[in-house]
Amino acid sequence: MKVADVLLGRPLATAAEHDEHIGVAAGIPIFGLDGLTSAAYGPEAAMTLLIPLGFVAGVQHWLLPIFAAILTLLVILYFSYRQTIEAYPNGGGSFTVASENLGDGAGLLAAAALMIDYILTAAVGISAGVTALVSALPALHPHQLLLCLLILMLIALINLRGVKESGFAFMLPTFLFVGTLIATIGVGVFQYFTTGGHPVPVSAPPPAIPATMQFMTLWLLMKAFASGCAAMTGVEAVSNGVTAFKEPKSKHANQALTIIIGILIVLLFGLSFVAKAYGVSAMDPDASNYQSVLSIAVAAVFGRGWFYFLTMGSVLAALSFSANTAFADFPRMARAIALKDYFPHVFILRGRRLLFSHGVYALTGFTAIILIIFKGVTDRLIPLYAIGAFLAFTLSQAGMVRHWMKCPDERGRSLKLFLNGLGAIATGTTLVVVLVAKFTAGAWLTALLVPLLIAIMLSIKKHYTRVRAETADPTPLRTTGLQDPIVVIPMARWDKISEKAMRFGMIMSKNIKVVHVASDEPNLLEPAWESQVLTPVRASNLPEPELVNIASDYRYVVSPIMDYLLKLQQKNPGCKIAVLLPELVVDHWWWNFLHNQRVSILKLLLLVRGNQRIVVVSIPWYL
Amino acid sequence: MKVADVLLGRPLATAAEHDEHIGVAAGIPIFGLDGLTSAAYGPEAAMTLLIPLGFVAGVQHWLLPIFAAILTLLVILYFSYRQTIEAYPNGGGSFTVASENLGDGAGLLAAAALMIDYILTAAVGISAGVTALVSALPALHPHQLLLCLLILMLIALINLRGVKESGFAFMLPTFLFVGTLIATIGVGVFQYFTTGGHPVPVSAPPPAIPATMQFMTLWLLMKAFASGCAAMTGVEAVSNGVTAFKEPKSKHANQALTIIIGILIVLLFGLSFVAKAYGVSAMDPDASNYQSVLSIAVAAVFGRGWFYFLTMGSVLAALSFSANTAFADFPRMARAIALKDYFPHVFILRGRRLLFSHGVYALTGFTAIILIIFKGVTDRLIPLYAIGAFLAFTLSQAGMVRHWMKCPDERGRSLKLFLNGLGAIATGTTLVVVLVAKFTAGAWLTALLVPLLIAIMLSIKKHYTRVRAETADPTPLRTTGLQDPIVVIPMARWDKISEKAMRFGMIMSKNIKVVHVASDEPNLLEPAWESQVLTPVRASNLPEPELVNIASDYRYVVSPIMDYLLKLQQKNPGCKIAVLLPELVVDHWWWNFLHNQRVSILKLLLLVRGNQRIVVVSIPWYL
Repeated sequence: MKVADVLLGRPLATAAEHDEHIGVAAGIPIFGLDGLTSAAYGPEAAMTLLIPLGFVAGVQHWLLPIFAAILTLLVILYFSYRQTIEAYPNGGGSFTVASENLGDGAGLLAAAALMIDYILTAAVGISAGVTALVSALPALHPHQLLLCLLILMLIALINLRGVKESGFAFMLPTFLFVGTLIATIGVGVFQYFTTGGHPVPVSAPPPAIPATMQFMTLWLLMKAFASGCAAMTGVEAVSNGVTAFKEPKSKHANQALTIIIGILIVLLFGLSFVAKAYGVSAMDPDASNYQSVLSIAVAAVFGRGWFYFLTMGSVLAALSFSANTAFADFPRMARAIALKDYFPHVFILRGRRLLFSHGVYALTGFTAIILIIFKGVTDRLIPLYAIGAFLAFTLSQAGMVRHWMKCPDERGRSLKLFLNGLGAIATGTTLVVVLVAKFTAGAWLTALLVPLLIAIMLSIKKHYTRVRAETADPTPLRTTGLQDPIVVIPMARWDKISEKAMRFGMIMSKNIKVVHVASDEPNLLEPAWESQVLTPVRASNLPEPELVNIASDYRYVVSPIMDYLLKLQQKNPGCKIAVLLPELVVDHWWWNFLHNQRVSILKLLLLVRGNQRIVVVSIPWYL
Repeated sequence: MKVADVLLGRPLATAAEHDEHIGVAAGIPIFGLDGLTSAAYGPEAAMTLLIPLGFVAGVQHWLLPIFAAILTLLVILYFSYRQTIEAYPNGGGSFTVASENLGDGAGLLAAAALMIDYILTAAVGISAGVTALVSALPALHPHQLLLCLLILMLIALINLRGVKESGFAFMLPTFLFVGTLIATIGVGVFQYFTTGGHPVPVSAPPPAIPATMQFMTLWLLMKAFASGCAAMTGVEAVSNGVTAFKEPKSKHANQALTIIIGILIVLLFGLSFVAKAYGVSAMDPDASNYQSVLSIAVAAVFGRGWFYFLTMGSVLAALSFSANTAFADFPRMARAIALKDYFPHVFILRGRRLLFSHGVYALTGFTAIILIIFKGVTDRLIPLYAIGAFLAFTLSQAGMVRHWMKCPDERGRSLKLFLNGLGAIATGTTLVVVLVAKFTAGAWLTALLVPLLIAIMLSIKKHYTRVRAETADPTPLRTTGLQDPIVVIPMARWDKISEKAMRFGMIMSKNIKVVHVASDEPNLLEPAWESQVLTPVRASNLPEPELVNIASDYRYVVSPIMDYLLKLQQKNPGCKIAVLLPELVVDHWWWNFLHNQRVSILKLLLLVRGNQRIVVVSIPWYL
């Protein structure tokens, strides 16, 4: 237990739940890292697609409208999610909002989409961080997968220590990430204005790739927009985690959301501005001297000194830890789903540090599988998770529209309806654009996985409903017909273990049948039966046990006993049968190899082939 | 069961044992293959070591005394083992003979040596056959290990079908192997005499390697003799398997032994003669055009026509199947050891086809491990198993000497004493020679493994002795103090499963304690307790069950129940406690993921932390 205490922290009492609630400062790293780090790769994803247009011809003209669209969408989402958080102070994840307002079907759709989103967020975040690290230190390249799994374990471990501790752990990397990038933007903007719009890069950006296309096509525009939307995933995280905040929950959650979105807008807008001012363009990701837009921009503003490395290091750390947002949200969502019987109930239980540990285990497991399958390189998975995120956004917004429609007396209802309606339309449109633009790049896989996940959740619900129907009992205990069971004791020889079983059998019933299988081995019971058992029983005037000898031509021992039990049970309808199994408990597990495992096999067989009327009594004998 | 019937044959009744006994013809492939195939590599092993002496200078002069020594030893062994078979008609393996005459220590030494010998025989035989196949068909080279494991499975499967069937299965390859080699010898000898001692090879042997050494050293002679002794392993096989033969067992076994040794002598002597007559010398095994002595000799006599390929094919098959001898003997030896409590008792049981199947499983497992570790190439293991074989020979012969000394009235006692004494001295001397000559080549490993195996066997014996001492009970059943146990039923809610458990508890005892752990989850039992349980119990004037609520601050459920049980047990000395565990049995195993496994965990914990007075009653509830 000591090791667990050190690794996971001491168990927290249920009454200590209040202390685990977090404030706004801790909420930003926990629920914001995923969204904030999008700034590090979202703009670049869009710019890379515009490379064929060349620097001057394309990026200058088209980046602005694309970013404007993305920023507008972000602002719409911000206002809509504010409303969700206020309306659902007990956690307003997409699953909850969609299923409460649009029915279980929509809820399951949102759940399946978010599940894919969260698992991929975790995998892609860790993988992106490690890829950045590996490009900086190529000697680590052979260990890419191992590094990914180590970071996964670290994040899982921190999360298992509880919500509060994970907030503290990720605070420093988050603030370093935000701080260094804002410093870059600040200095860049200052230089821009002091040099009259023509700042001199400290470290010159590589020349732009010459244009190979003359015209912007709608298709390319759509694709660039769809890629840029990756910057928006993670916005729903706060609304899902409202319950983690201190009272008043909604207020604190909304403060965190405002700060997160505010910083995200500053970063997205500022970095684009600096990149444009310094003439930074995206490089071909397959080029041997490839650098990210962020890296070129920071180098242009500060040169490749200590600040450059501090900035890139904090980007790397923040990217890896952005997986943490999935760890904060997935267990909460899994619990909400499990509460409605669509997920195993184990996700409802709270672990030693009061969080829903099984959700953390499941997410860690699935993420590890994804990382192992893709050997730690998950770039190709990015399109898959934007789909999941936007499907969930749309369902959540549509659910909110329905929510307001059901509350005619709500103050400011029209504005709220308008905002969420706008959000639903905007995210729905984006979903269609992303789906079309990214279908062949892997989004089709999401389209396959979602129905599969929904089918699994439906069958889980069906099973729980069936179990409840078959075991529910609103009637009082029946006190009639409490007759003694028939006790059956399989016995190979007369020893202390057999005697213990016999004595327990005599307590339970007057009707005892001792079963001996006459197999290959010498009969060690028969010679003792008369003198050791029958004589004392007769002397005490107790009911005599019956010795049943079963011949076994083929040397089987277990199945003749099973057959006998089933026959006995048929012959005595209405009677319970108690099978007493003396079990030898050895002091070290390896000694089990020296004893036949017939008792274990019989137990298993009784469970599989037995029925409601056969009860198994284990009589342990400790060596 | 159908699949098992096809693969392994239908189960045989114990009464059918008589039909499974084999005659002389089946005994030769079963117990002779290992010995006979030695002819294919024994002489070569000796000749290879003499390569540095050159063809004319060395092999001609020195092969004769080496072979003479080996053949003499073989004849001595033949006569001594005849006597062993006669004296031990119930199986006279080295373990039996050594432990009965020289004490358990010597028996264990022989057992450990033979265990290593048998496992290595199986691995080396299969590997040698596959290596020959792979050199003929290099395309198969990447699949060497797979081929080895497939042949191992095939041999194991044939053996699991019973002794008789394995005799039939291996008869054809054995007779083909013996027949083709004798034909080669016959034609070779005929050519030798019709050409006046100068036969013309059909396919000329490669030229001999020029001599690099002038003088024969004693050390080289010893090494050549030690390597040639590999031809003798497997001679003890018949004596170990006497019980497999039809009555009169000793007579049939001795006939089989005579034929096996007779053929082996013909093969060893004949092949050496032909090789010499045709000027065949051993090639450097590392040469790229390497061929075995056997292959060169057969080609010299018959050319590389269909007969050459038939011969080499049958050699290959016989080598692979020589592993079968280990499969015939190991289970018998394991049984003999288990009967004396030095091995798990499971080796005593007879499987569906009346053989000791667990011995077959164990040998298959260990052989597979060896093959996998050495990736199917086991040449380097050959020295290891000659040690095991000769150690067992020596102990067996020494045991026989002691045996005759204990029977002063035996007819022809002096001759028997002399023969076994001679055998003991000869094999003992050989053992020392092999050990010295091969120590650095791997024999040291055997010297380490033997004591380890002996230590394991001793600790097994110690465990069985302890169990017997602790459980043996020569006293009659005590019929006093049969008081009702305290029944404890852990219960989460009131449903049909709980009701079933309650009813069974009321049958068992008047003293029922229902334990409810008040954890994170809502208390579903309290509201129903009064109306559904207490009211009907009071109405029927039955003793009232007690509801025990246990608070669990840290949301643990299982360990508070365990703690309660242990405390209850301390407070009620002399009382038995029966824990009733309602167990949900789902119709497909995967549904278990949807139900908490607390009952299974509690069961396990009860087994580990429980004691003689706590009994577990499983009340199954079938969905």
